[in-house]
Amino acid sequence: MSEQELGITESKEYATGDWYAEVVQKAKLADYAPMGGFIVTRPRGYALWEALQDHLDGWFKETGVTNAYFPMFIPESFLEREKDIVEGFDPEVAWVTHGGHDELEERLAVRPTSESIIAPFMAEWTRSHRDLPLRLNQWCSVVRWEATETKPFFRTKEFLWQEGHTAHEDEDEAWDETMLRLDQYEQLFEDVLAIPVMRGRKPEHDKFPGAHTTTTVEALMPDGKSVQSATSHYLGTSFAEAFDLTYTDENEDEQVAHTTSWGLSWRSLGALIMTHSDDQGLVLPPTIAPTQVAIVPIWQEDTKDEVLEYAEEITDELEEAGISVELDDRDERNPGFKFNEHELNGVPVRFEIGPHEVDDEEITIVHRPDGESIVEDREDIAETAEEHFDDVYEKLYDAAEENLEENVREAESPPEILGTIGKHGGYVECGWCGDEACETVIKDEIAAEIVMCPLDRDEEPVHDECAICDDEAEETAYFARTY
Amino acid sequence: MSEQELGITESKEYATGDWYAEVVQKAKLADYAPMGGFIVTRPRGYALWEALQDHLDGWFKETGVTNAYFPMFIPESFLEREKDIVEGFDPEVAWVTHGGHDELEERLAVRPTSESIIAPFMAEWTRSHRDLPLRLNQWCSVVRWEATETKPFFRTKEFLWQEGHTAHEDEDEAWDETMLRLDQYEQLFEDVLAIPVMRGRKPEHDKFPGAHTTTTVEALMPDGKSVQSATSHYLGTSFAEAFDLTYTDENEDEQVAHTTSWGLSWRSLGALIMTHSDDQGLVLPPTIAPTQVAIVPIWQEDTKDEVLEYAEEITDELEEAGISVELDDRDERNPGFKFNEHELNGVPVRFEIGPHEVDDEEITIVHRPDGESIVEDREDIAETAEEHFDDVYEKLYDAAEENLEENVREAESPPEILGTIGKHGGYVECGWCGDEACETVIKDEIAAEIVMCPLDRDEEPVHDECAICDDEAEETAYFARTY
Repeated sequence: MSEQELGITESKEYATGDWYAEVVQKAKLADYAPMGGFIVTRPRGYALWEALQDHLDGWFKETGVTNAYFPMFIPESFLEREKDIVEGFDPEVAWVTHGGHDELEERLAVRPTSESIIAPFMAEWTRSHRDLPLRLNQWCSVVRWEATETKPFFRTKEFLWQEGHTAHEDEDEAWDETMLRLDQYEQLFEDVLAIPVMRGRKPEHDKFPGAHTTTTVEALMPDGKSVQSATSHYLGTSFAEAFDLTYTDENEDEQVAHTTSWGLSWRSLGALIMTHSDDQGLVLPPTIAPTQVAIVPIWQEDTKDEVLEYAEEITDELEEAGISVELDDRDERNPGFKFNEHELNGVPVRFEIGPHEVDDEEITIVHRPDGESIVEDREDIAETAEEHFDDVYEKLYDAAEENLEENVREAESPPEILGTIGKHGGYVECGWCGDEACETVIKDEIAAEIVMCPLDRDEEPVHDECAICDDEAEETAYFARTY
Repeated sequence: MSEQELGITESKEYATGDWYAEVVQKAKLADYAPMGGFIVTRPRGYALWEALQDHLDGWFKETGVTNAYFPMFIPESFLEREKDIVEGFDPEVAWVTHGGHDELEERLAVRPTSESIIAPFMAEWTRSHRDLPLRLNQWCSVVRWEATETKPFFRTKEFLWQEGHTAHEDEDEAWDETMLRLDQYEQLFEDVLAIPVMRGRKPEHDKFPGAHTTTTVEALMPDGKSVQSATSHYLGTSFAEAFDLTYTDENEDEQVAHTTSWGLSWRSLGALIMTHSDDQGLVLPPTIAPTQVAIVPIWQEDTKDEVLEYAEEITDELEEAGISVELDDRDERNPGFKFNEHELNGVPVRFEIGPHEVDDEEITIVHRPDGESIVEDREDIAETAEEHFDDVYEKLYDAAEENLEENVREAESPPEILGTIGKHGGYVECGWCGDEACETVIKDEIAAEIVMCPLDRDEEPVHDECAICDDEAEETAYFARTY
């Protein structure tokens, strides 16, 4: 890679889409596949997914979830058993029609989501209330044949995700489950990805097909667009009824189970990359960065040995403390090149070590997001590094939080909604009558939609009247442009 | 689950196939999917795959491999770029022909293996010798539309596996890579799955399509059939040539890279289940068992409190030592039922704790494979448990090793080959001229084939003459029936 290739040429502020695509490619996170809509996830990108999985999968398992694996194909007749599912996904299903040289008797859908193949097995495995709750999750890829421009991690026909599917005795328990998973998604964004999120409920006309309620966590990107980052659905009894998921209760009476499903995809990586990165390249919080510290030794011929020895000692000490560290002792590159490369790749903390640091038993520590440079004692360096990780995390989180807090604005009329989103982006909260037609009025003017309503259906709307039609407001709506 | 449902009704010795299917279903490892050839991997089965992944993925990463993810679809024209690949897999590819309501311009293969989609990207990412070696791996599922009877983990149209793909400067380095991965597969079988394996090379006519050499680890099942448990291929330069995977060497000359690929699928789980399990159900080595110890307290009404307290203390102590333990304190089941259930589920070690154990500060430890029962001191119980894990592992390994050692026999004529395999199963080693026609002579009589030849092509054949045609023997062939 040449000096030139390290540079990001596009601007996050003025050409967000091109800048994002450039960061993804130059930081070697992903490449475009030969078929439109598909990407190749390179090792640096996949390592982020693995780190995210480690966190979330651990939390799932601590709270009673077990992983399983269901077939990637779903017979067409199974998709058709829940009418909302088939209507919701039919236009975007990839169909397998031939096996080898033979045409199949029944077409197979490449799973767009797996309720239709998982629910019948949950039904088979559930006899009595003692078999409940039943909590399954799978990490896999799904396919949705949407004809939009490919945007790595945000918009791809095949994407990686996890999908959780649970069955419960009653509505209360299923609701608790729905909210527990939403909490865990929020925790992932707040505590691992350094992104504050809004929690809410999708409007009725934008629920998951067949769901009673779809809850969502929404993250606001720096360009003012919202990312639906994960959803958790209370499915009521619709899937249980369609697939005969029943159980005998303590009185030996047959009851219909209540089910949930919840999923988080690699869009969360898109949100991560988009939120923190800058015109120098990728920025990652230390919680998820595959390399947390890059050590760059700076030597002349006569100081090389002592500098390298000192750098190696520190590398060992960090590694022993479980910190992921890369000692960049390449001869053929100068320090400036190395700084740029580690910045491009999103290494959150850099240690610079030259003869001065060796003499004074110190280390110069540089933060990725803002270039702040601090000289620290060499003693207890692993502990010191952890403190800097916390500092860097806080800087990233605070910036994202400031962006969110400054960009929720009220509006009381269509021109106000349109004007506010047009000028500032972000969320516009307003009274809403609950009618999809009022959303359409806005949608037709600018590509903004209602991304969520408050979780609590009984919450008083922010204004008494619908900002669009002036009828009585049923609830508060949050309009935003979306990814 | 009733007492009755715990029992395995089929016999491993007399009806191996039915017995295997029953163990898989009753131990809740997998169920049959509605489409022939597909299975649903239940949490207990998937936990085995996760444990196996943990081991193997760790070893891969320690030896320079990074994980990535490539699209699950491969355009037909990509498959066609390497002629052996297209010829080898064409009859068993599942084809996606429609996306939503539209017919695709080009059919997409659901990946049967990913060389054809990975190699072009390896070519794109490789410019100079400094970019090599390039080592990628992905954990995913692949589809091969074979029309055979479904046998969970052994024969399924979709199966989980890992596929590694590497590129190197020269043949030596690529060969080292091929053998390193074969070593790691062997290590998995020997040190984790308690199964000794034979290492060998597939005959020329049974190589991976396009490969220079296919190496294999073969495991002998108790019914005398061999399982091809993992393969590691030195691909030579055929894929590199087909996909322009070249690099500039130190002299700035353009060179063609040498590539390898290597894969292990969930057949390894099939081999694990088949090898150790018995007529009471699943048997697992403690190295991979999701639950290593089941503690069954045995109480009367007046001793319940003290027994439970003692059992809980021991549970905590084992957990603190990182042992996976289940305290089975269910009220509604008697100890006998619990014993049977944990045996069915393959828990390798059982702790029985009654009032006597409490009084004497002891624990009765029972081994799953043979029911051996040993009374041990309560002190240092975690260490003691680890010793018993080693004992159990050794028992399982020794039994499998005995089976293998007793079942490699020489033969010098077709009747001898047929008679030996017909009577004993196992491997028959004999001289072979290298001609596929001689294998066919045997194959036509019984369903046995040449599963491997010695890794070293220069090794002297076991006999001077081909056992089938009496021409000069080129090498030793190992005939066996296979899964």
